Amino acid sequence: MRTPITLTPIGYVKNSRSGMKDDFWGNVISEITISDNLLEECLDGIEDYSHLEIIFYLNQTDTGNKIYKASHPRENPEWAKVGVFARRNKDRPNHLGLTIVKLISRKGRTITVQGLDADNGTPVLDIKPVSKEYLPREEVKQPDWQTELMKDYWK
Amino acid sequence: MRTPITLTPIGYVKNSRSGMKDDFWGNVISEITISDNLLEECLDGIEDYSHLEIIFYLNQTDTGNKIYKASHPRENPEWAKVGVFARRNKDRPNHLGLTIVKLISRKGRTITVQGLDADNGTPVLDIKPVSKEYLPREEVKQPDWQTELMKDYWK
Repeated sequence: MRTPITLTPIGYVKNSRSGMKDDFWGNVISEITISDNLLEECLDGIEDYSHLEIIFYLNQTDTGNKIYKASHPRENPEWAKVGVFARRNKDRPNHLGLTIVKLISRKGRTITVQGLDADNGTPVLDIKPVSKEYLPREEVKQPDWQTELMKDYWK
Repeated sequence: MRTPITLTPIGYVKNSRSGMKDDFWGNVISEITISDNLLEECLDGIEDYSHLEIIFYLNQTDTGNKIYKASHPRENPEWAKVGVFARRNKDRPNHLGLTIVKLISRKGRTITVQGLDADNGTPVLDIKPVSKEYLPREEVKQPDWQTELMKDYWK
C-alpha cells in the first residue's frame, strides 16, 4: 500500500540564510529560478497574485528512521508535549516545508519573494498562487504556545 | 543538482469522492488514519487547532513527461492562458495538492476533516496545523478569473 513517491525539485532557494535558525524571517528576500526542464511560461500570470505558497524540502533535517515521539515545542518544558502533526516543526515525516510568501517580482524564469523561511540551497517542490477562497473560511483557533512561539518569527 | 526526493505516504484519504470532479467540495467529510509505522501520539495536541493544512499526492494525474505549457484555466477560452505555477490546477510538476481543511475530530490514529478536495484513496504526505501567523500578513490580491473559477468550489 505505502508505495514510495519520487519528486524532483523544480528549483532551489537562493538567499542569505543558513543554519536553519528559528526566528527573524520576515524581511528575508529569496529568489527561486525554475529548472531548465520547465518552460519559462510556467510562471506566466503569476504577477497577478500578491502571495504564493511555496512547498519545499527540508533537506538539512535528519532523514533517519525516526519515530517522532511527542515533544515540547522548541524544547521548552513550559509548553506541553505535542505530536509532530500538531506543530510546524522542521523535523517531520517527509520533511516538507510550506510557507505563504509575498511575491515581490517575476523576471523570466525567476521569482523574488519575501518571508520564505528556508535556507539557501533548499529544494523547491511546488509554487501555488494564494487564492482567497483557499484561506480558512471560519475563525482560526490555535493553542497559546503557538502564538507565543511565533512572537519573533517574522521580525 | 536535481537529485530526486523519495517520500512515503503517512496515510490515505477516506471519503465518498471519486473522478476528480471540479466543484462542490465544501461539505465533503474525509478521514485520514495515520500509518502503522507512526506513533498515535503524532496527532497529540492537534485538537487545539481549528484548521489543518493537508499536503497530498495527486496520484490520478498523468505522471508522464509533460512540459506544462501555459493554458486556459478549466479550458475556458475567455480566461487568458496562465502558467502552471499561476494556478492551483491538479495537473502540475510533482503532483502536490495542498488544502486548508476544518478539523472536525480526532480519535486515536484518525482525524476527520471537512473540505478536503481530494478523492478517496489519495496518499497524504503531511499534516500541519494552521497557525494565524502563517496566513498572509498583507491584503491578498488575485486575478478576477480565479475568483470566478472558485464560485462553486466550496458549495
